[in-house]
Amino acid sequence: MIEILQTRTTGKGLHEITREVQAAVRAAGVDDGLCTIMIQHTSASLTIQENADPSARNDLEEWLDRHVPEDDPHFTHTAEGPDDMPSHIKAALTSTTLSIPVVGGRLALGTWQGIYVWEHRSRGSRRRCVVHVGG
Amino acid sequence: MIEILQTRTTGKGLHEITREVQAAVRAAGVDDGLCTIMIQHTSASLTIQENADPSARNDLEEWLDRHVPEDDPHFTHTAEGPDDMPSHIKAALTSTTLSIPVVGGRLALGTWQGIYVWEHRSRGSRRRCVVHVGG
Amino acid sequence: MIEILQTRTTGKGLHEITREVQAAVRAAGVDDGLCTIMIQHTSASLTIQENADPSARNDLEEWLDRHVPEDDPHFTHTAEGPDDMPSHIKAALTSTTLSIPVVGGRLALGTWQGIYVWEHRSRGSRRRCVVHVGG
Repeated sequence: MIEILQTRTTGKGLHEITREVQAAVRAAGVDDGLCTIMIQHTSASLTIQENADPSARNDLEEWLDRHVPEDDPHFTHTAEGPDDMPSHIKAALTSTTLSIPVVGGRLALGTWQGIYVWEHRSRGSRRRCVVHVGG
Repeated sequence: MIEILQTRTTGKGLHEITREVQAAVRAAGVDDGLCTIMIQHTSASLTIQENADPSARNDLEEWLDRHVPEDDPHFTHTAEGPDDMPSHIKAALTSTTLSIPVVGGRLALGTWQGIYVWEHRSRGSRRRCVVHVGG
Repeated sequence: MIEILQTRTTGKGLHEITREVQAAVRAAGVDDGLCTIMIQHTSASLTIQENADPSARNDLEEWLDRHVPEDDPHFTHTAEGPDDMPSHIKAALTSTTLSIPVVGGRLALGTWQGIYVWEHRSRGSRRRCVVHVGG
């Protein structure tokens, strides 16, 4: 089963989609299987991260933002704004696709794991993920 | 087929699990298919790396440790110790899920590739991976 | 269905394989399903990146090359040349496996996404990817 999952981000950082992905798994009616998510963008990415303390996600976002700064004078691909090239680099360093086993109709995530769209553009955007659930 | 793979790490670095994953593939009885591994933690991760010379794995671990140091004064998520926030960042920069084709009942790894749990906590921990093998 | 995809790179940087992967999907005759690619090397990797403006790929390659330089005096794994250890690190920071949903017989990539072998060795090499296409 294939489902398109659309989400609206409002700026840089982690935007949780665990519930939406779990709903797609439920709709697929698969008991034991595999759920794969791909984000159809190169200036946003996916990650599985701690879902408990927001300070961990903030520190993570800020670390990446400090290490891939917008004002790098080496960049030549700057026509779409100063946050564009850092977005592609951040996407390359994180994940575009994730595959999560399904056990008993549920994503087999660890207790503290959540699935996130990681927005790298300053203004956010409408983001599309393709979710595949198989047996 | 789903199998839970438990492993005990003793400190930061790469801990090989190729043999255990191959055993899960064999148990599944799948000839040609796909094996997916997900680690159920956000302070450890997965990687496929060179299995020949241990110096490559040591240099890799030390590079990551120098580039995501524990004493970063920007971190606010510090309640679980100085190695906790670097662990989440290292996990985000490496892999939480891996999918490896199976050919003739064996993981289709390259000659020099091994599958590793990458422990990011100083003391190590008991780590759980979920392995899915499908046709 | 499993297919081996061989490609020849000529130096560091992104080498597009979208067409070859799409051909493997077509040959598999799968309508809705999942395509998984694994590169059988630890000194090259995979990425999904922007396929429009080459300047984005150049900036990406140069950013990674500046941040994982060859002359790092900490490296001990140097027998295979100065570009060997950086190659392993770059591979660990990017992707060894990718899973892309297939919709209507086509890879469900976004408009601006292409699939690339990311060569990290200076001279390039013959590179093998294993492609699995399932229902």
